Amino acid sequence: MLEKTPETALRDTVHPFDRATQVHAGDGGWRGEASADYFAFVGPFGGATAATMLRAILIQPERIGDPLSVTVNFCAPVGNGSFDLAVRLMKATRSTQHWMVELLQNGEIATFMTAVFAARRPSWSHQAATMPDAPPFDQVKPIPNNLVAPWAQQYQFRFVEGAPSYSDTVNDTPASAYSRMWLSDTQPRPIDFLSLLSMSDSFFARIFHVLGAIVPIGTVSMTTVFHADAADLAAENTTAVLGAADASIFHKSFSDQTGELWSPSGRLLATTSQVVYFKA
Amino acid sequence: MLEKTPETALRDTVHPFDRATQVHAGDGGWRGEASADYFAFVGPFGGATAATMLRAILIQPERIGDPLSVTVNFCAPVGNGSFDLAVRLMKATRSTQHWMVELLQNGEIATFMTAVFAARRPSWSHQAATMPDAPPFDQVKPIPNNLVAPWAQQYQFRFVEGAPSYSDTVNDTPASAYSRMWLSDTQPRPIDFLSLLSMSDSFFARIFHVLGAIVPIGTVSMTTVFHADAADLAAENTTAVLGAADASIFHKSFSDQTGELWSPSGRLLATTSQVVYFKA
Repeated sequence: MLEKTPETALRDTVHPFDRATQVHAGDGGWRGEASADYFAFVGPFGGATAATMLRAILIQPERIGDPLSVTVNFCAPVGNGSFDLAVRLMKATRSTQHWMVELLQNGEIATFMTAVFAARRPSWSHQAATMPDAPPFDQVKPIPNNLVAPWAQQYQFRFVEGAPSYSDTVNDTPASAYSRMWLSDTQPRPIDFLSLLSMSDSFFARIFHVLGAIVPIGTVSMTTVFHADAADLAAENTTAVLGAADASIFHKSFSDQTGELWSPSGRLLATTSQVVYFKA
Repeated sequence: MLEKTPETALRDTVHPFDRATQVHAGDGGWRGEASADYFAFVGPFGGATAATMLRAILIQPERIGDPLSVTVNFCAPVGNGSFDLAVRLMKATRSTQHWMVELLQNGEIATFMTAVFAARRPSWSHQAATMPDAPPFDQVKPIPNNLVAPWAQQYQFRFVEGAPSYSDTVNDTPASAYSRMWLSDTQPRPIDFLSLLSMSDSFFARIFHVLGAIVPIGTVSMTTVFHADAADLAAENTTAVLGAADASIFHKSFSDQTGELWSPSGRLLATTSQVVYFKA
C-alpha cells in the first residue's frame, strides 16, 4: 500500500472546487490558475473563474462584511495556466466596500469583476417571491454525467422542468427558455458565496433550450446579487440549491438570461442575470 | 422685449436631460456637473449621473458599436458642483469593447461604471417575453407633478398598476412590489440609450410600494442590458416607454429590484436590475 505524500493528501481532502478556485500570493499581487477540472470548450468555466476572483477579495485583510452584488465581465477567453489578479478597493464607507479585480494573462485583461461588500444590518424582512414547485432533491435523478465539458461533470443537474434535449437540427418553432433544476456539486460541498457565484453561471445557455440545439455561445457579463449573508448561509447548511432560469429575448447575436437560486428550505439565496453572445 | 443671449438660447433649445448629462473636456480628462434640475434628496438622481457617465463613453473617438450592458455602482453621494470623469478602455476585441468610467469629486470615487459595447450583428431573433397589458399612453393620466424631488418633475409617470399611495404609517401586511407605468420625459424627448439608462433608475423604490410609506433608500448597484441597437431605437422613434418593476426580497437592509422597459410597439428595449439599501 502506497503511503500518501502531503501533496496527494491535499488533493484528496480539498474539494475540487476549492482547488480550482485557489488564490495564492504572487509577485506583488495575487495569482490563480485555470483548472483543467473545470474547463469548458475554449477556456475555464466562467463560474469557476468568477469564484476565484471573488475569493481574492474575500481573503483581503481589510475586507468587511459579505458580498452583496458582483458583476463579472468576460472580455476574452482565459487560457491555460496561471493568471494574475489585481485587487483594488475602489471605495469604502462605514458598512460598504466597492472592490475591483482584474484578471490578466500576458499583461492583457481577460476578465474583470466589480463587487459590493456590505456588513448587513437587521431590518424589516419580507420575501415577496415564492419558491417554484419541485419534488425533493433526492427524488429527482441527475442527468447523465458524461457531458462533453469537464466543468459540467463537477455538478449534478436534476431537472424538474426543461431538461435539455438537444439535436443536430434547430426547432421549427422556439421552445420555452425556462428551466428548473436541483443543482449540487458532484462531490457534495456546503453552499457558500463562492459556489453560489459559480452556480449562477451553470445554467445551460437559454438559446440551447429555445433552439433545441447547441450553438456557439459565450457569457459577456454576469451580475449576481446575494440575498443572504454568511450567517444566513451557515444556517441553511445545504449542499444543493434549486435553480430556475429564463430569458426574455434573443436579438442581433445577444440574449439575456435571468436566474434564481433557492435553498431547499424555500429561501431565495441569490438572483442573477447575464448577457450571452450567441451565433445562430 | 428682451433679446436672447446665445447662452439663454442654448438653455431654451437643449433638452433639460441633455443639459444635465453634458460632458466637456477638462484638464486631461472629462468633466460633468450635478444638475439641480435632476436633484434627488441627497444628491443628483442616479439615473442622470449614470447617463452622464455613459455619454462620456459614447463620445470617445475609439468607441465602436452600441451599449449592450452597463453596471453602475453608487459608492457615495455625489455632491453639488462639477465632477471628474476618468474614462478607460479596459479591453477591446474585434466587435466588443469593455469600458470603465470613474466619477471623482475631491479626488474620491463617488460612482463608477463598467460598460460593454458591441457592434451587434444580424442573427436569429426571438422575443420570448410579451409586453404587459396597458391602455395607450395618452389614455392614462400622469400622476401630479408636484412631487418633492426635482428629478421626478422631469418625468411623467402614468401608472397602469401599482400607483403610489404613500402614508406616514407602514402597511400592516406587505403590499405588492409590482408596478407598471408609461414613462416619458416631461418635455418629450426621443428615447435613446442615455434616457433608457436613466429611466432604468426611475422606478420608485419597491420598499415604498410594499410598505406604503417612504423610508430612507439608496441604489447601491444597477445593471441595465439593452436589447436594441441604435438602428432599432431609431426605428421605434418613441418618446415614451412602458416600464414594469418588481422585487423578490427585502432582507437585512437590502432589496433587489428588477425592471423592463418596452416600446409602445411591443419591443423589449431594456431590462434592468438593482440592489437597493433601505432603512426599515
